[in-house]
Amino acid sequence: MDMEKIRIGVIGFGTVGAGVVETLLKNSGLMARRTGVELVLTKVADLDTTTDRGVALPPGILGPDAMALIESPEVDVVVELVGGTTIARKFVSEALRRGKPVVTANKALLAFCGEELFQLARENGTEIYFEASVGGGIPCIKALREGLVANNVEAMYGILNGTCNYILTRMENEKADFSLVLEAAQKAGYAEANPSTDVDGYDTANKAAILASLVYGKWFTLDDVAVQGIRDVTLTDIEYASQLGYRIKLLATIRKNGEKVQLCVRPALVSKDSLLGNVSSVFNALWVKGDIVGATMYYGRGAGRAATASAVVADLVDLALNHRHGCQRRVEPFPVYAPSLRLATKDEIRSRFYVRCQVRNKAGVLARIAGVFAGHGISIASVSQREKDAQQDAVPMLLLTEKASQSSMDGALNEIRQDGDMVQPPVCFAVEELEN
Amino acid sequence: MDMEKIRIGVIGFGTVGAGVVETLLKNSGLMARRTGVELVLTKVADLDTTTDRGVALPPGILGPDAMALIESPEVDVVVELVGGTTIARKFVSEALRRGKPVVTANKALLAFCGEELFQLARENGTEIYFEASVGGGIPCIKALREGLVANNVEAMYGILNGTCNYILTRMENEKADFSLVLEAAQKAGYAEANPSTDVDGYDTANKAAILASLVYGKWFTLDDVAVQGIRDVTLTDIEYASQLGYRIKLLATIRKNGEKVQLCVRPALVSKDSLLGNVSSVFNALWVKGDIVGATMYYGRGAGRAATASAVVADLVDLALNHRHGCQRRVEPFPVYAPSLRLATKDEIRSRFYVRCQVRNKAGVLARIAGVFAGHGISIASVSQREKDAQQDAVPMLLLTEKASQSSMDGALNEIRQDGDMVQPPVCFAVEELEN
Repeated sequence: MDMEKIRIGVIGFGTVGAGVVETLLKNSGLMARRTGVELVLTKVADLDTTTDRGVALPPGILGPDAMALIESPEVDVVVELVGGTTIARKFVSEALRRGKPVVTANKALLAFCGEELFQLARENGTEIYFEASVGGGIPCIKALREGLVANNVEAMYGILNGTCNYILTRMENEKADFSLVLEAAQKAGYAEANPSTDVDGYDTANKAAILASLVYGKWFTLDDVAVQGIRDVTLTDIEYASQLGYRIKLLATIRKNGEKVQLCVRPALVSKDSLLGNVSSVFNALWVKGDIVGATMYYGRGAGRAATASAVVADLVDLALNHRHGCQRRVEPFPVYAPSLRLATKDEIRSRFYVRCQVRNKAGVLARIAGVFAGHGISIASVSQREKDAQQDAVPMLLLTEKASQSSMDGALNEIRQDGDMVQPPVCFAVEELEN
Repeated sequence: MDMEKIRIGVIGFGTVGAGVVETLLKNSGLMARRTGVELVLTKVADLDTTTDRGVALPPGILGPDAMALIESPEVDVVVELVGGTTIARKFVSEALRRGKPVVTANKALLAFCGEELFQLARENGTEIYFEASVGGGIPCIKALREGLVANNVEAMYGILNGTCNYILTRMENEKADFSLVLEAAQKAGYAEANPSTDVDGYDTANKAAILASLVYGKWFTLDDVAVQGIRDVTLTDIEYASQLGYRIKLLATIRKNGEKVQLCVRPALVSKDSLLGNVSSVFNALWVKGDIVGATMYYGRGAGRAATASAVVADLVDLALNHRHGCQRRVEPFPVYAPSLRLATKDEIRSRFYVRCQVRNKAGVLARIAGVFAGHGISIASVSQREKDAQQDAVPMLLLTEKASQSSMDGALNEIRQDGDMVQPPVCFAVEELEN
């Protein structure tokens, strides 16, 4: 490999691929002046070689054959932007087997088989760079792994999926239902035709698994994450939460207490006065509390052509500098040093909760429900009964609890669900208090 | 230098020094497991060797002689935590001359003679690390230099002084005057006995000079920064700003437009709905807009024992990894590549403005003042006249302007100041609109 120049092959010429090409064409000169390394795009592979992506690729660079790109002597580093866990896995593995470093934005791949891929990289004396896999353009992987290296990470809360945050923000602003907003988001290009990966929380969960693996010294996969998406978040609850001073966000929650790791993705209430509560639309943010530094937060665009490209190209510079200075594998990506960690049980996961019940407007119902919570050891912080619902002869009752375990709450909800005066199943979301 | 172990000498055993020692004692094991490098504290130098700092230093480490520490064969890296620009300059220079890398949190030193010191480091084949010099525990230097390396930085806005932000937050929350809150802050240890460096804006200006030098490829010093502190921010203006939907923050503003760089520190209005507007108390934040990534933000504690230590120790790990892998000077700290940049003139600096006038309650005054602004080419976005001030037979008049140049505004203010119906000199602050 040339010490001054690094030759780049990009597999996948979709949205992000085009953004990477555009960024290289626009700012390679600036980066060379800043760092002394020159990034040269030599190959782009995509099955579709005809669609106009709005960037002027020099002739002879674009072709359909990804394996030829990987094997090309003119490619020093392979950028994988195909996505998914099948063909992308093959491309990444084949590049690593040839000792070529890989830059990827593929969170699903890393959460699915990261351990295997990083092992393969190690065996072949090369590296995987993945800043763009979490938080899009936000340099949060670097912040966690290097900037906060002196810290035990006590907790992380992340708004890590732009589609979900866009939908929840529009629901609140326009007082519109989930399905209407989803449809509009699909039309505007902010949600996929099949939105499941985003709205059912799996994309966020992949990112949560990567973040937990990164800071806790043990591999976590998608299977380790308790996932709940935003399909069941109603406008009703968004509005009640707002009246109580909260917003509902799809939150990745990653917390460690001794050997116990809580790893979940779920809609949760965060205060409107908190910074996370003010992260709106397609923006992402990661809030991190370290034992030394205290609370920190990293904010920016979590997806999209240019923002993701910013992170991919930063990885290319990092990689080029490592190669120029002969210090490959300078920063251990996922050091494994805490094999005894385990996932927290529902008994061990504690938070405050928001509960909404639709109950018949009869004497004694509140007392009975309060009694159920008390019976499960859950203290009620506040309760409010709202105006009667004209159509249902029922009144909404809102409760905010003090901290309780998930298992106690599950028990209480199960019991309440069977109450004869309960008109609908109770709705429950965690309330996360982000202390500074 | 041992490849696995790095031996650390700390000069200055004050607040941050004690925090660094504490962090090393607490988390060295974790860092070694994460990175493979061992940080070993071998010497601490401070003239005061008797005061209890609340950390258990092993015997034989603390002594009064900084030069002996610098010369000691048991010290591989010198951490300078003395502060100031005189004795600290000597210690840093002496360490660099001996080829020893330096880690510093000293923003004043870097803004004063950074160019000279980085040149000295280069000549002696060594490095200066300075993450802690801006934003305390927030890894913003790393984010700018590495994470956003692919970007032209179009603008940065920073809340970079915890003391000022603490004072402004308390003034708003407690409806208290500057002098009262300053006194309380001094008692609580959040402000120095001589608060000038903080409240007159020089600390923020030092940081602004460092940030501008870092991203724009040319050295800027404190002298290049137009500085205005918070002594003239009154409760009255905080309350009026609040009614208009804004908060007043001491903002570092760093913007580039072509070859023109705006570099200033001044109280400015930011929207309550913006993230920066929600950064309160001692917290700091840096908002950065890159041409590729768009808006990003970095948030955390900007000062204090532990937070600053988090950044100093992260630098020590970075340095140790560079030495272990033989890649000193892997990332060029302040590459100079844009000598043709120049400071923007007052004609070229544009923003919206908030203006408050106390005028006699007479017919025609508003028309006359509006005429003055119009005469200077300044459009008024909104105007509101408030209740009459009982004591002064005067009414406050609030104006928000559209974007105008600083020179136009200065001209208009000069003219208004001479108006016979102006009871007090007009008050004027910039209004910064942080687009996403």
